[in-house]
Amino acid sequence: MTRHQPLSAMQLPRFAEMGTFMRLPRTRDLEGVDVAIVGLPFDTGASFRVGARFGPEAIRRGSVLLRPYNASQKVNIFERCTVIDYGDLPVVPGFIEDSYARMEEGLAPMVDAGVIPLGLGGDHSITLAELRALSRRWGPLGLIQIDAHPDTWDAYWDKRYTHGTVFRRAVEEGILDPSRSVQVGMRGPIYEPDDYEQARRLGFDLITMDEVRGMGLDGVIARIRARAVGRGPYFLSFDIDSVDPAFAPGTGTPEVCGFTGYEALVLVRALTGTQLVGADVVELLPAYDTAEMTAMLAANVAYEILSLFALAKGERQGSA
Amino acid sequence: MTRHQPLSAMQLPRFAEMGTFMRLPRTRDLEGVDVAIVGLPFDTGASFRVGARFGPEAIRRGSVLLRPYNASQKVNIFERCTVIDYGDLPVVPGFIEDSYARMEEGLAPMVDAGVIPLGLGGDHSITLAELRALSRRWGPLGLIQIDAHPDTWDAYWDKRYTHGTVFRRAVEEGILDPSRSVQVGMRGPIYEPDDYEQARRLGFDLITMDEVRGMGLDGVIARIRARAVGRGPYFLSFDIDSVDPAFAPGTGTPEVCGFTGYEALVLVRALTGTQLVGADVVELLPAYDTAEMTAMLAANVAYEILSLFALAKGERQGSA
Amino acid sequence: MTRHQPLSAMQLPRFAEMGTFMRLPRTRDLEGVDVAIVGLPFDTGASFRVGARFGPEAIRRGSVLLRPYNASQKVNIFERCTVIDYGDLPVVPGFIEDSYARMEEGLAPMVDAGVIPLGLGGDHSITLAELRALSRRWGPLGLIQIDAHPDTWDAYWDKRYTHGTVFRRAVEEGILDPSRSVQVGMRGPIYEPDDYEQARRLGFDLITMDEVRGMGLDGVIARIRARAVGRGPYFLSFDIDSVDPAFAPGTGTPEVCGFTGYEALVLVRALTGTQLVGADVVELLPAYDTAEMTAMLAANVAYEILSLFALAKGERQGSA
Amino acid sequence: MTRHQPLSAMQLPRFAEMGTFMRLPRTRDLEGVDVAIVGLPFDTGASFRVGARFGPEAIRRGSVLLRPYNASQKVNIFERCTVIDYGDLPVVPGFIEDSYARMEEGLAPMVDAGVIPLGLGGDHSITLAELRALSRRWGPLGLIQIDAHPDTWDAYWDKRYTHGTVFRRAVEEGILDPSRSVQVGMRGPIYEPDDYEQARRLGFDLITMDEVRGMGLDGVIARIRARAVGRGPYFLSFDIDSVDPAFAPGTGTPEVCGFTGYEALVLVRALTGTQLVGADVVELLPAYDTAEMTAMLAANVAYEILSLFALAKGERQGSA
Amino acid sequence: MTRHQPLSAMQLPRFAEMGTFMRLPRTRDLEGVDVAIVGLPFDTGASFRVGARFGPEAIRRGSVLLRPYNASQKVNIFERCTVIDYGDLPVVPGFIEDSYARMEEGLAPMVDAGVIPLGLGGDHSITLAELRALSRRWGPLGLIQIDAHPDTWDAYWDKRYTHGTVFRRAVEEGILDPSRSVQVGMRGPIYEPDDYEQARRLGFDLITMDEVRGMGLDGVIARIRARAVGRGPYFLSFDIDSVDPAFAPGTGTPEVCGFTGYEALVLVRALTGTQLVGADVVELLPAYDTAEMTAMLAANVAYEILSLFALAKGERQGSA
Amino acid sequence: MTRHQPLSAMQLPRFAEMGTFMRLPRTRDLEGVDVAIVGLPFDTGASFRVGARFGPEAIRRGSVLLRPYNASQKVNIFERCTVIDYGDLPVVPGFIEDSYARMEEGLAPMVDAGVIPLGLGGDHSITLAELRALSRRWGPLGLIQIDAHPDTWDAYWDKRYTHGTVFRRAVEEGILDPSRSVQVGMRGPIYEPDDYEQARRLGFDLITMDEVRGMGLDGVIARIRARAVGRGPYFLSFDIDSVDPAFAPGTGTPEVCGFTGYEALVLVRALTGTQLVGADVVELLPAYDTAEMTAMLAANVAYEILSLFALAKGERQGSA
Repeated sequence: MTRHQPLSAMQLPRFAEMGTFMRLPRTRDLEGVDVAIVGLPFDTGASFRVGARFGPEAIRRGSVLLRPYNASQKVNIFERCTVIDYGDLPVVPGFIEDSYARMEEGLAPMVDAGVIPLGLGGDHSITLAELRALSRRWGPLGLIQIDAHPDTWDAYWDKRYTHGTVFRRAVEEGILDPSRSVQVGMRGPIYEPDDYEQARRLGFDLITMDEVRGMGLDGVIARIRARAVGRGPYFLSFDIDSVDPAFAPGTGTPEVCGFTGYEALVLVRALTGTQLVGADVVELLPAYDTAEMTAMLAANVAYEILSLFALAKGERQGSA
Repeated sequence: MTRHQPLSAMQLPRFAEMGTFMRLPRTRDLEGVDVAIVGLPFDTGASFRVGARFGPEAIRRGSVLLRPYNASQKVNIFERCTVIDYGDLPVVPGFIEDSYARMEEGLAPMVDAGVIPLGLGGDHSITLAELRALSRRWGPLGLIQIDAHPDTWDAYWDKRYTHGTVFRRAVEEGILDPSRSVQVGMRGPIYEPDDYEQARRLGFDLITMDEVRGMGLDGVIARIRARAVGRGPYFLSFDIDSVDPAFAPGTGTPEVCGFTGYEALVLVRALTGTQLVGADVVELLPAYDTAEMTAMLAANVAYEILSLFALAKGERQGSA
Repeated sequence: MTRHQPLSAMQLPRFAEMGTFMRLPRTRDLEGVDVAIVGLPFDTGASFRVGARFGPEAIRRGSVLLRPYNASQKVNIFERCTVIDYGDLPVVPGFIEDSYARMEEGLAPMVDAGVIPLGLGGDHSITLAELRALSRRWGPLGLIQIDAHPDTWDAYWDKRYTHGTVFRRAVEEGILDPSRSVQVGMRGPIYEPDDYEQARRLGFDLITMDEVRGMGLDGVIARIRARAVGRGPYFLSFDIDSVDPAFAPGTGTPEVCGFTGYEALVLVRALTGTQLVGADVVELLPAYDTAEMTAMLAANVAYEILSLFALAKGERQGSA
Repeated sequence: MTRHQPLSAMQLPRFAEMGTFMRLPRTRDLEGVDVAIVGLPFDTGASFRVGARFGPEAIRRGSVLLRPYNASQKVNIFERCTVIDYGDLPVVPGFIEDSYARMEEGLAPMVDAGVIPLGLGGDHSITLAELRALSRRWGPLGLIQIDAHPDTWDAYWDKRYTHGTVFRRAVEEGILDPSRSVQVGMRGPIYEPDDYEQARRLGFDLITMDEVRGMGLDGVIARIRARAVGRGPYFLSFDIDSVDPAFAPGTGTPEVCGFTGYEALVLVRALTGTQLVGADVVELLPAYDTAEMTAMLAANVAYEILSLFALAKGERQGSA
Repeated sequence: MTRHQPLSAMQLPRFAEMGTFMRLPRTRDLEGVDVAIVGLPFDTGASFRVGARFGPEAIRRGSVLLRPYNASQKVNIFERCTVIDYGDLPVVPGFIEDSYARMEEGLAPMVDAGVIPLGLGGDHSITLAELRALSRRWGPLGLIQIDAHPDTWDAYWDKRYTHGTVFRRAVEEGILDPSRSVQVGMRGPIYEPDDYEQARRLGFDLITMDEVRGMGLDGVIARIRARAVGRGPYFLSFDIDSVDPAFAPGTGTPEVCGFTGYEALVLVRALTGTQLVGADVVELLPAYDTAEMTAMLAANVAYEILSLFALAKGERQGSA
Repeated sequence: MTRHQPLSAMQLPRFAEMGTFMRLPRTRDLEGVDVAIVGLPFDTGASFRVGARFGPEAIRRGSVLLRPYNASQKVNIFERCTVIDYGDLPVVPGFIEDSYARMEEGLAPMVDAGVIPLGLGGDHSITLAELRALSRRWGPLGLIQIDAHPDTWDAYWDKRYTHGTVFRRAVEEGILDPSRSVQVGMRGPIYEPDDYEQARRLGFDLITMDEVRGMGLDGVIARIRARAVGRGPYFLSFDIDSVDPAFAPGTGTPEVCGFTGYEALVLVRALTGTQLVGADVVELLPAYDTAEMTAMLAANVAYEILSLFALAKGERQGSA
């Protein structure tokens, strides 16, 4: 039996004792913990709308309707995994390099203890801190990135650290292995054709939304799985702007023509068998959300990621 | 010729004389009436967000863009049916059992007069009152329930009457015949696998959203029709949370990955040939709606249900 | 030195680690505690708009800008008092009598330990539970009620427990001493002249808003203090609808022409010297709030009440 | 005893059977009626934000919290007056002169029957139709206009009929007697000093907001009463933009620094003794409202006007 | 090289220097210009919600995320075309015929100079002015109309000029050639079956949404292209209400069951090879928008239309 | 006569050609210019809510209702002053020191040309750039700061540049003369009593809101004028959070109990006779605004500041 369980709405109504993901215990005691939900409320990397610093808190509120059994994946997460809400890491709003240092340091206890961090952003710049922290244990990671933008620009206004440059930096730092990495969902007007080619030249398998519509979701899934299953440790980064604004209005750089909410969850569910050692859900900007629609979807994405962890643990236990 | 017609926007702009469904007359004179739109503004059964008490009023406002001819079904509702807006039934906010008594009593004149009630909720708990009232005339009813949740839990906090327990109660009371009933659209995290199995053990044909995606909408329709056409009197209960939050944000317990608005209407349109003796549209919560999007969709659902009544009457007349 | 301190924005940005009042520790350990913030997320007593069940969570979020030193009262709350966030009490949405029992029971450990509860509502019906719990220790309490409505109706729809009948019930139960009690801020259309006279005949000193405008705020304060200072143990109940909707739109039964936010705080600040043994802030309904304006004001009211506790403790210590 | 009463919340909760002002009967039967609430949902005269066509419906919804006894004026409106909701008059959106003709014609039955119309706008252009209709019975009327703008411009874009020119037109048509008229609340940047002088040269007593702040509300009231009491039949036109946007955000041409909600009601209450033969509340634009704050205030203004009618009828009866 | 380029976010952040479409220069200098973005902020033709006068400004704000290279069409718009933002044309709010005259006159310089106008509405009534202006150069135009409504009613309230009658007027005036025209996306309840047949009798190829769902998007595209490619000069009119309210809530007469945002863009992208001499995007009503979702989609539609112009110019240049 | 005039609503409706302050010309031609409105869309200095980068654009939109004649000050601004909208200065979101350099450089042409910059923020950190630029011409400036917070903290998270430390930095840099400076409006909970004393020890005359309420607005004005009139060149910095959230919800760190909108304008109007060489309006955060209420108030504040410039120029001309 696992150590912690989310608070059930059968015990206490969902609107009581809100404040943690699924009303799990908020603790920093990592003993026996498999997964730690952790907030990274940093948004200084954002180039347009800003305010994702309130994202972790909003995803937690959006999670209160979740229940423990994932009927699509046929798994009770909390029977398999001990999950906690670790709270938020310290950041320094307005100062990205200091924040990187503090976030990386804040993640270290989890990484050291072998606890999988599930980060709640924050803008996409936070992923660099996560990759830095995790690569110290796992070496260069493969990346599965579900996103409207590749985030592989070199610089904005001569600045190398923004939410649009994070994966180029990770490749340069040797903490991300582009040859094992895949980016899916890119769309919208770009500056020049080379914008996507740059990512491909770096080694990423970049799949645009036009390609997704051409090959179908099953085709996309096959391509991702071919690249990622059995290929070593991976990080899954889910940018909520991969989803269409109709389903996810609360984000900073929305692009029309994205995934539906359903497609987004199906994509995540299909990642069974990949060795995920960390993940995040980023770019939720609650000031632009309506009826908590985006927050609830982000919470469901996090829930599906938890389910992957639970399934993976089950397989390991089953095979043991 | 029917007695009443909705007020046409060609006569008076739609923003004038709002206040009843499609600007039909508000009356309690049931003489010659086929269908009565009736509000059941009760929401004390809600377990999370609350405020569906304002639902009937919002659906009425959302109905002012509707016009009399249903081009998809090729029927002018008001040439076939005399429809009125009966107004709202008395309820006692905060007291579910008293409200059940008053709603059942309030529905009695319609049921006695052979007028089909089309209820506007209110949370889903109201359906029990409708089933009680209708079953006194029709005996145990079959149910077609379009919903994200089966609402067959036994109790919340030891309480037997909530919006999540209503169909188990109806089965227990013998006013619902689960063997003729079908539930479609269930999805989202649940407490345990048994949540859906319970409904099936009660006798419901429960079709999850995953199954819907697997068999396609045509498959679902065939399955519902196979169960329901020619099987006696039915009640159609449409919970607006069956629809995806992108299309229906204004509801109390939203679940991502629902039907599109289009799929929802197609499902309802496909129910021709079932003997509907009552129906409702529930769980609209206008405080969370945006741009009246959900209210307008709920009004369209009610309109499609009216169209079913009109087609059924036409068939009866045609076959006479 | 006190045991707990709110988390300072100088240590961690205010948008991190939200989830408790002023980011105080959430604990049920009452050792050495002076005041416990406690949520009572119940709103089944509401007669119009509903949703105050989300009030406690919203006030907590609205509190993150508060800092420890009250410059108007010249007191650092947390140097004087040990304050915790006790979390939320269990309630049964939809069932007021059961909820009363659970709330009263939930308050008992605080009352028994001599910890002052500062309740966050919830609709105004919750105050009856607080009065019941406190009176077991303190006997009949005096009441200072800042509110747009007297809440002394006898019944709504023959129901004795609603948010509009709570103080009549308390008088009947002998747990409230109307001869020591004062109600201030009543306004708006009423059913009949007797609505206010009833409260007065019960023994309350009811001061309407018209009277407030006539005598001025200083006059009101003098009248309240004359009645309440040195007259035994008191409960302070602050209904956010006492404030004008321009300053507090997020409430359930708004009445125009209320106090400004400033006047509201001045009124609370003036209650030094009364022996407050409990207090609450009620009727915040975040679904109708804008820019968290009402939540922040409610949090400031709670903060001013905390300051009264701190000043009182200082006096007791000073006089010791 | 009067013929009609508003539906009491003690009989039926306020959120049921909404749709008329105070849930009064909607009827065109003028027999024995003293006052008819009537919607004029026209907004083609608006020069900036538009959408006041939804104003009448919003004010009706905003009125459901009102109760029959006005404690400030000590009068039960419905004991004195028979009031109905006459519904909305036909208008032709986009065509102001046709709409004027239809509105004037629509008002005629009320004027002919000696029923006082209380118009719900609509933008301020509607007042011309009301003045035309009423002047046929009463001759040139005096005007009490509470407003941020004098609305006495000559033309916009060479067009003589807009919401900013209505009172110049009325003077020109001889249906308004400027020498008996007063305009109060004007403020904000203007085109040139002559903007206000023009109104004064026409004969209006124009009192700017700066003057209001200088002489105080009592001074203003004295000046209005000196001009209006006992000076023949009057029309009271209340533009909701006279109120500060903090209290009344839902309007079309907001001006900062307006009256508070309280001051607005006090102004109206002070008009006892004037012979009001008609009135309106205009420029409510619900698409910009928040939490129905403006609609509720507009409903309270209408309620205070009803109270004036009730008091006047009482005086006439008392003196008979 | 073209004369003007949009301001790049690489040069200046997107939230700076907003105010023109894609931050192109606002100029009336037509020298060397291929396409002029031009606002027609007129909404007096609207029959229900109104406020599309703020549409041009909102689409401009919604355009700031667009970048120059259209990856789906493989074209850099601004390498091929010189595009300017011409600003807004003068209109007379409240007076449709005067506004038509001014808009037609305002468009003349562009038409005379051979500059393609891309109009930003405003309600759909503005298209008549554009057709009038363009037909003086091009003769009767073919029309591709993407819309929920055919807008071929004869009159509303005996008025011939509204947003619902515009295309019947254009046919009557001989400036639109219905035999070359196609209307796609019609849906929702109508007054009578003849509503669509009227349009067809006028000569339009009207494709309802039910037909779209039957033949699939590829089928629709084939049918449009068969009618329009190589058939002379065309006008493309895109009514944002063709899109489902989930994707485009900010509009005046929303109809459920519309195109997704993706389908809308695909439809526009498919119009290569048609000789477009003008186009517009109409019926954006920002007061009902959420998170600028509709404005951003409308801006993307305009961007896809610009791309068609760029591709067409490329072909002409290529074939030269 | 001055070179430029705002576009009059009498010429073109206010909703057309929006995009600059009062629809003045957007130009960088400083010839003959007295005042330049200039946007500083920077918000990386914000410690709580963020998004003031959209402030300049919002204030411009909020300015379209303004007209040229200030009736309270009896001055037509544009008869006295040539005013332009200079557009926005380049900033580097996320990097405060680079942004300071660019803003200071961007202001230099105005300062060099003797043009008064009227800055639109942005968060309060921008003021340091303005003071740096202006002090190069004028030497150390006096400051009139209307604000809820003194912004004289030493550091946040060891960072010296934030919106809360800006005036301490300016004193340290010798570009601000605290002995001539006054801060008014401070309120709300603070960290310790020394928070305000620090500012006073630096030399500021800090007037808390409690003191304002004690001495009255006239007293405050007298105190400011005594300190500032005839005391050399001044900078006026107006933080919109000085105003109560009821009047100005759209800001980043709201504090209840602020000035009313009217008091704010009266304060600014009272600053005649001070030698203002620059000014700004900061901390407008439109994502939290409602009905553009805050943006319109901010635009009115800017308008009152323009009026001060116009009056000052008149005096200089009059005395010449």
